[in-house]
This record gives sequence, C-alpha cells and structure tokens, in this order.
Amino acid sequence: MKSIPLLLMGCGGVGRQLLQHIVDTRSLHAKQGLLLRVLGVSDSQIMVIVPDVFTTGLTDMHLTEVCRLKSSGSSLQAMNSFGECQILKSSEVTKRIVDVAALLGRSTGLVLIDCSASSETIGILNRTIDLGCCIVLANKKPLTSQIEDYEKLVSNLCQIRYESTVGAGLPVITSLTRIIASGDTVHCVVGSLSGTLGYVMSELEGGKPFSQVVRAAKSLGYTEPDPRDDLGGMDVARKGLILARLLGLKINMDDIKVDSLYPDEMGPSLMTTEEFLDKGLPSIDTTIAERVKKSSSEGNVLRYVCTIEGSRCQVGLEELPKNTPLGRLRGSDNLVEIYSRCYKELPLVIQGAGAGNDTTAAGVLADIIDLQDRFP
Amino acid sequence: MKSIPLLLMGCGGVGRQLLQHIVDTRSLHAKQGLLLRVLGVSDSQIMVIVPDVFTTGLTDMHLTEVCRLKSSGSSLQAMNSFGECQILKSSEVTKRIVDVAALLGRSTGLVLIDCSASSETIGILNRTIDLGCCIVLANKKPLTSQIEDYEKLVSNLCQIRYESTVGAGLPVITSLTRIIASGDTVHCVVGSLSGTLGYVMSELEGGKPFSQVVRAAKSLGYTEPDPRDDLGGMDVARKGLILARLLGLKINMDDIKVDSLYPDEMGPSLMTTEEFLDKGLPSIDTTIAERVKKSSSEGNVLRYVCTIEGSRCQVGLEELPKNTPLGRLRGSDNLVEIYSRCYKELPLVIQGAGAGNDTTAAGVLADIIDLQDRFP
Repeated sequence: MKSIPLLLMGCGGVGRQLLQHIVDTRSLHAKQGLLLRVLGVSDSQIMVIVPDVFTTGLTDMHLTEVCRLKSSGSSLQAMNSFGECQILKSSEVTKRIVDVAALLGRSTGLVLIDCSASSETIGILNRTIDLGCCIVLANKKPLTSQIEDYEKLVSNLCQIRYESTVGAGLPVITSLTRIIASGDTVHCVVGSLSGTLGYVMSELEGGKPFSQVVRAAKSLGYTEPDPRDDLGGMDVARKGLILARLLGLKINMDDIKVDSLYPDEMGPSLMTTEEFLDKGLPSIDTTIAERVKKSSSEGNVLRYVCTIEGSRCQVGLEELPKNTPLGRLRGSDNLVEIYSRCYKELPLVIQGAGAGNDTTAAGVLADIIDLQDRFP
Repeated sequence: MKSIPLLLMGCGGVGRQLLQHIVDTRSLHAKQGLLLRVLGVSDSQIMVIVPDVFTTGLTDMHLTEVCRLKSSGSSLQAMNSFGECQILKSSEVTKRIVDVAALLGRSTGLVLIDCSASSETIGILNRTIDLGCCIVLANKKPLTSQIEDYEKLVSNLCQIRYESTVGAGLPVITSLTRIIASGDTVHCVVGSLSGTLGYVMSELEGGKPFSQVVRAAKSLGYTEPDPRDDLGGMDVARKGLILARLLGLKINMDDIKVDSLYPDEMGPSLMTTEEFLDKGLPSIDTTIAERVKKSSSEGNVLRYVCTIEGSRCQVGLEELPKNTPLGRLRGSDNLVEIYSRCYKELPLVIQGAGAGNDTTAAGVLADIIDLQDRFP
C-alpha cells in the first residue's frame, strides 16, 4: 500500500469538504493501493496533528469530528478530548509544518494542501517546496503574489498542483499544462471565469435591467454578500493572472487591465451595500442596457471575460459573436476557450460549474492523487 | 537531466507527427530538465534501433530522416546507410522490444508507444507492462480487445496513458480519470465522438438531403474513402467502449448496441462505394429527413452520439434538446458531456477538434510527459 502523507491548511468550506471526500474515498483508493494519511489540519488559530508523523494519521473519526466542529463554528481546541492528537497554538503552527516537511521531504514525501484564503501562506509553501515536498492549492493568493514569489513556487512544476484555483474542479489548468507540454503554441485564452457575472450577462440579453438582474443573482445566492466583490472583476483578474503566468507571461496583478462593472464613486468606501443596491445600481441601468443593445444590433453578445493574448491580459466586457461557445453560454457555468496551433479556428472548450465546495474539493483531491508517482 | 527512453511502434501519420513534435520540443523540454530519448522506431516491416539502449538515442537527424522516408512511402531499410542504427526485420522486432523492456524496466524505465492501427500489439504491450515499463497508446484496438486482455493492460493505471484514443488531444480521458479519482460519481456520459457524423448531423438541420451532405463531407475530406466506415458507427463504438470501461463497465464490443446510418443490404460486401454513394444513399434520404423533421417539430435536434449510462453503452441517433451543449454543436468538433454528482444538472463539457495527426500526436506527447515522475 502506497501512503501519501498530507497536511491541510484551511478548514473553511473547501477544506472541510476535502476531509469528507478523503473519508468517503478510502475504499476506492485502497483498491488502487493508495492510503491518504492526514497528519494534521490547521485553521487560523489552531493545528491538530498526530504525534508520530511517520506512521500514523488522523482517523476517520478525527476527520469527521474536525468537520463537525468547524461546521458548527466551534474551535478545534475541542479536539484535545481525543488523547491521540496534539493541539498547537497558531504561533507554533508554521514551525511544526516546516519540521514535518524537513522530516518527510526526503523520505516518505509530503503534500501540504492550502485551502485557506490567506495571503500569508506563500512563505511556508515555498519552504515546503524547498524541502522536496509537494503542494496543492485551492488558495489563489500564493499564485497571485509578486512574480518573484510565484516563480519560486512553480520552479519545479512536478511538485505543485493548483487546478481548483480556476474554475473549481474544471480541468482548465490540467488541459493548458498538457497543451504546453506537447509543444502546442497557445495563441489566446478567453474565459468567462465568474459564475455570477456569467449569469448576469446572459440574463441581460433578455432585456432585463442590470439592477434587477444583480438583485436576482444576490437573492439566488450567486453573489458575495456585497455584489461589488463580484462586479469589480478582481476575482476574475486573479484567475486571469494564474492562467497568464501558466502561459509564461511574467506579469503582476497591476499589469492586468480590469474594467469594473460599477464606477469608482460607488465603491465600498463611499457607499454601503444597501445604498449601492438601491440607488447606485439603478443609475447604471441605462448605460449597460445601451451596451447590450449595441452589441445585439451588431449580431454580438456582451460577456464579462478574461482575455489573454500575446503579452496582454485584460478583464472586462467584450462583444463576442453570438455563434461562439462563449456567445452561446447561458446561466452560471464557467467557460474557457483555448486557441492554439492545434485548436486554431475553433477553440478547445471547457465548460461547467466553476464554483462550489464539493466541486472545488474534488479538484483538490484529484490533484493529490495526480501526485502519487512522487511517493515511494 | 531526466531521461525518458521511448520505443515507438507505428510510423503512420500520427507516429511521424509525434517524432516531429519530439524534435520540435527538444529545447522546451530541456528547459524543464527533460530529455526524450527515442531508442527505436518500427513500422509493420522493420525496426530501426540504437545499439546501446542505456545511454544513446536516435538523433534528430535520424528522426527527421525516418519521417521523410515514411512520408515519401519509402522503406525504413534505407536507414541502414546511417551506420549508428541497427535494422531489424519484422520477425525480430517483438523479441527485441521485450529484451529492451526487460533491460530497462527495473532501471531507467521505458515508454512503449503504440501509434499503430494493429490489433496484434496487445501481447507485447501486456508483456511490457509486466516488465515494469509504461505504455502510451494512440491505437484504440488494444483497449477494445476482450475484457480479460484489457484488464491486464490497465491493471496498474499509473503505467498506462491513452488520451489520444478518444477525441485526439482533447482532455476527455484525463478529465474522467480526475473525476473518478476524486470520488465523484459519474452518472452519464454522452458524446459526439465522430467529427464526420457531427458535421453530417448539423448540416441536416438546414434541410439538406442526407446523400448530399455525405457527399459534401467526403469531398471536404471529412470521411474515410468509403464513407460507410464512418456511417456504420463502429469507430464511435470503439471510443465508447474505451470510455465505458474507464467508468468501470466490464463489457466487450458485442455488448454495445450500434445503430448504423445505412441498412445491412447496403453493406460493403453487397455494394461498391460508388453504388452506395450514387444509389444507396439517396434511397435513405426520405427516412432521415423525416426523423430530422420529427425531432425539430418537438424542439429537439438529431445527433449521432455515444451514450454511457448505468450499465448501458449505446451508439446511434438520439433526439436531444436544442438548448444543450450537444444540441448547440455545429460542424465537425467533438463534444463530450459528463454528468456526475458534481456536474449534476449541467454537465462538464469538453469540446474541440477530435481528429488530425497534429492534435493526436500532441496528445500522445502530453501523455509521455505526464509519466515523467515514474522516471529516475
């Protein structure tokens, strides 16, 4: 039986779902001779870890209890009632992770998984890589940090996987990695990478006012609590940066031109969410309706997309022909078009749900399994 | 520098294109610390191989010459003018491949690549796997052989890759493998897996007669020389069997219900290609036109698809809703819809060119690179 030792940072929705998936797939993976051995789990305050990282792992009962505690908003501190686990304070976590990585890096190997939303993990991820371990990320922030940090992180592509940072479980990174490995030249990538904005743009085609569509999206649970977090385009830009860097562009967040769907004077520092929804949004309705009408009159549709072409990466509204995969997109699916030497006139298209804890955690688990050949 | 020793069986369009890709990507792979060392190349008659399989490989000049000879229809025998290569007769090839696999299997490793169209390679592929080597297939036949042979071939999934057998370079197998590894349950896979039949079905929607559309497809070079090789559906069935088995179905070709687009009495043993095109085809026009009209009147479109659901795998015409990815498909792209726990109401969709030597060979090369962690 091949054993893959894991350490998980981040116990939010995706992290918890990952632990649940690991428990649920035990017998499936055992059939393939694989054992996923979870050594420890940390949130921003506490780490729960087994005392002997060489042979033991948290039991399924431990993992289920971690999920239960975190779902109910309780502290992982309660795990100290299980005598077999050690509980570490947040100040001790980084040192312990590095110690474990140093111990296992050259022997059994280790996968450090980042399901946090922290921008502070880049240091520990880079040290873990240096110690010969692997990392799997659902967290976009380490990949959108400054280019120097990023390049260190991906210096050995065999040690890192991060499929779930773009389009959740959709095989976008995997497909681009394969295309690049085969020597195919990517000319252009265009993607609708926000389910929220995908839904908004396709609803606008029916003639509904922008403000009404955004409010509907909010009540359907498609948007962040403050819809400006979606409408500003920064989340799409982060995904765009990850794809652009994968394609070899040496750029930072600042280099991406991001068109927000609301003007600066309606920003969060100048208006509350309620004011934005009640007064701000309706005042943009006419402008947006005119853009929709104009593109429709030219046989096009308006989409909020990320475009990477040549050395350019930009995020914003684009008029696209109706009879393209992006033009035909409806609802909240993500969709990526990849144009390359092999997919020249008609792109390689990947489409599907690009969000959700279940799907995102499934992508993380597939990444872990994909690393199995690096383990003895 | 990590060295991956390769042996290639099959020097048709895909094999030649693969050799060309290997030459073209030398510097790209060197940057990632990878050297693809082609030890030998065989066609149905001859094998060209380096005398020392431990350290040397065919040079780029050798590989280019192999491509040139095969493109011009010449024999690989001419390679004996290069003193550095050994030339083996077809009767010696199998033994030498097994010898090389035995020598390298437990040391440097080896990838045996099957780009032939032969049903005779299953034996040597299985022996190579047993000797601890890896195999990469563009050849569908070994994967559609009897279930016992298939199960032996895939007994260790880490040693085998075969992305290019379905949809050429499209990441269909890769995506399904990831979905399965993550413990997601696949409920249904529906795919338009023939560019020819995809083109035919979408052209029929415009009201053109079937015979006219097929003749147009033939003159565009979309069909085999005898279009019945496409219209019979057996090639789609072979791809369907590969996907069905990947999903765990223990079935053989005989278990797949295949609906041919022409009746038995127009089969190749009863009619020449010309007779079929001139007399056979037009006599089916009305029947097909009525089916197209009927599905259109119900808001559907007619597609020639492979459907895998539960324990059932079938190939033939299906009426599908217009507003689904398959319903919206136009032209000769392949398209696969995957429905699973994570992609429940709206499927994961992969779409793009599913044929062509360049794309197929790119998929083979990506498979080889994907095996790199198995090499020291």
